[in-house]
Amino acid sequence: MLSLRPLVTACRDPKNGLVNVFWITAHPESRSLNGFLKREGQKALRSKGHQVEESDLYAMEWNPVVDAASYGHDPVERLQVAAAAKSAHAKGSVSADIRAEQEKLDAADAIVLQFPMWWFGMPALLKGWFDRVWHQGYAYGRRGPNGEWVGYGDGFLAGKRAMVVVTMGGPEHMFGERGIHGSIDDLLFPIQHGMLFYAGAEVISPFLVMGSERFTADDAEVALARLRERLDTLQSATPLQYRTQNGGDYENFTLRPDISPGVTGLSMHRVRRAP
Amino acid sequence: MLSLRPLVTACRDPKNGLVNVFWITAHPESRSLNGFLKREGQKALRSKGHQVEESDLYAMEWNPVVDAASYGHDPVERLQVAAAAKSAHAKGSVSADIRAEQEKLDAADAIVLQFPMWWFGMPALLKGWFDRVWHQGYAYGRRGPNGEWVGYGDGFLAGKRAMVVVTMGGPEHMFGERGIHGSIDDLLFPIQHGMLFYAGAEVISPFLVMGSERFTADDAEVALARLRERLDTLQSATPLQYRTQNGGDYENFTLRPDISPGVTGLSMHRVRRAP
Repeated sequence: MLSLRPLVTACRDPKNGLVNVFWITAHPESRSLNGFLKREGQKALRSKGHQVEESDLYAMEWNPVVDAASYGHDPVERLQVAAAAKSAHAKGSVSADIRAEQEKLDAADAIVLQFPMWWFGMPALLKGWFDRVWHQGYAYGRRGPNGEWVGYGDGFLAGKRAMVVVTMGGPEHMFGERGIHGSIDDLLFPIQHGMLFYAGAEVISPFLVMGSERFTADDAEVALARLRERLDTLQSATPLQYRTQNGGDYENFTLRPDISPGVTGLSMHRVRRAP
Repeated sequence: MLSLRPLVTACRDPKNGLVNVFWITAHPESRSLNGFLKREGQKALRSKGHQVEESDLYAMEWNPVVDAASYGHDPVERLQVAAAAKSAHAKGSVSADIRAEQEKLDAADAIVLQFPMWWFGMPALLKGWFDRVWHQGYAYGRRGPNGEWVGYGDGFLAGKRAMVVVTMGGPEHMFGERGIHGSIDDLLFPIQHGMLFYAGAEVISPFLVMGSERFTADDAEVALARLRERLDTLQSATPLQYRTQNGGDYENFTLRPDISPGVTGLSMHRVRRAP
């Protein structure tokens, strides 16, 4: 059963291969490893002629809290978040800070999502960027031409690339295939699969910086060199092979019994490569 | 290889079986299903004579954003979050709002963590409660009597019970063992295993409300009846059987090859029950 999107995506602008990259990040200290990788990574992209748009959520003092005002909702009435957002989206009354982020997403060819891993997930400030910006009507709840729900392989990020850049204080073996924290693939599944691939993005392998708690300046330079290489192939790297919602592998949003038979855990949702 | 903590925990107060429950929640609308289950669940506990302490993070206007001020850090100096928090904890200069939450945790016999699932995780407001309150020095980074790191089965929540209460708009089959979103056990792993069990709590099965997007008032009453039953066995229910860090199943924080051989995915970190 083949349910893949094309493996290799052509450059966004066939004339010169230059793209618009939207870089979203959340770290409370600009003098941190995260700040260093962000600045130097963006500089590397610009030096190649790419455009970089940024949302540095700490610098912007982003509001991470979903509330009635986000969607122009009258607080006298009961707030049903998804419905209020959908309605506001249709009326154009979503708050200006959210719309500005959506415009950056719409204009991007590629998205870089950078954060320090805190308690196995994003900092609250970044989680609240998703909570508020990725609302019903904009990010989910659409149907395709045949009435089918759109999602997992198609959506508002279709045709765009996405890469997660994440730093972890703990050492690599704790996040390995049998590491005590759970494997990094499984820990990033809600982000890479549940958010980015759900929205239709071509998600490439994450850029991981492990053991950052003990990093020296030399370690940071080594990480930057690795990051530059990954940014060079942002457009050409093979995406993670998650199974698409409407490609035949799922029936009623459940993986068919003959697909990944006997596989337990979240990796069943990825196509296995031939050994 | 046996690495379990005792299955059944005695009542906290053997004289009368009454306990202190700390209920943490984050939902922007008190007239929601979440608000209903919270109020009625707490009422049920109080009617049995238990004490209930609450942190309703929306009502409290909780600050979810980790920053220098959280740990009394001079912003002229580079902020290294974990180190700053550890130092502030030792000096007693952690901000008052964080210390108040830690006092509630310390006084609790059981913790209820209630939230609507947004993008496969907690609302930002709740994530930021963990980011700020569960800091180094208080929640992690301790060594035991033999110099071993404390975690996964032992920690600052040792001897306390924990239950996750979560509402999901989507239908149950999308979160099933082969559901397209990933199984709910795997999606909750970072919270139940990575946070609560890591901290030493005895984590009992989550209370799940699925398909809440289409709930009627009758559906809410049915959910409440189920919740009341679960609250009645908060102290006596068998905890989830995660493997303990220092019980012999892990070597250098990696699951031994002879433990859960051939099992892929996060369920390898749970003891399998006899069929």
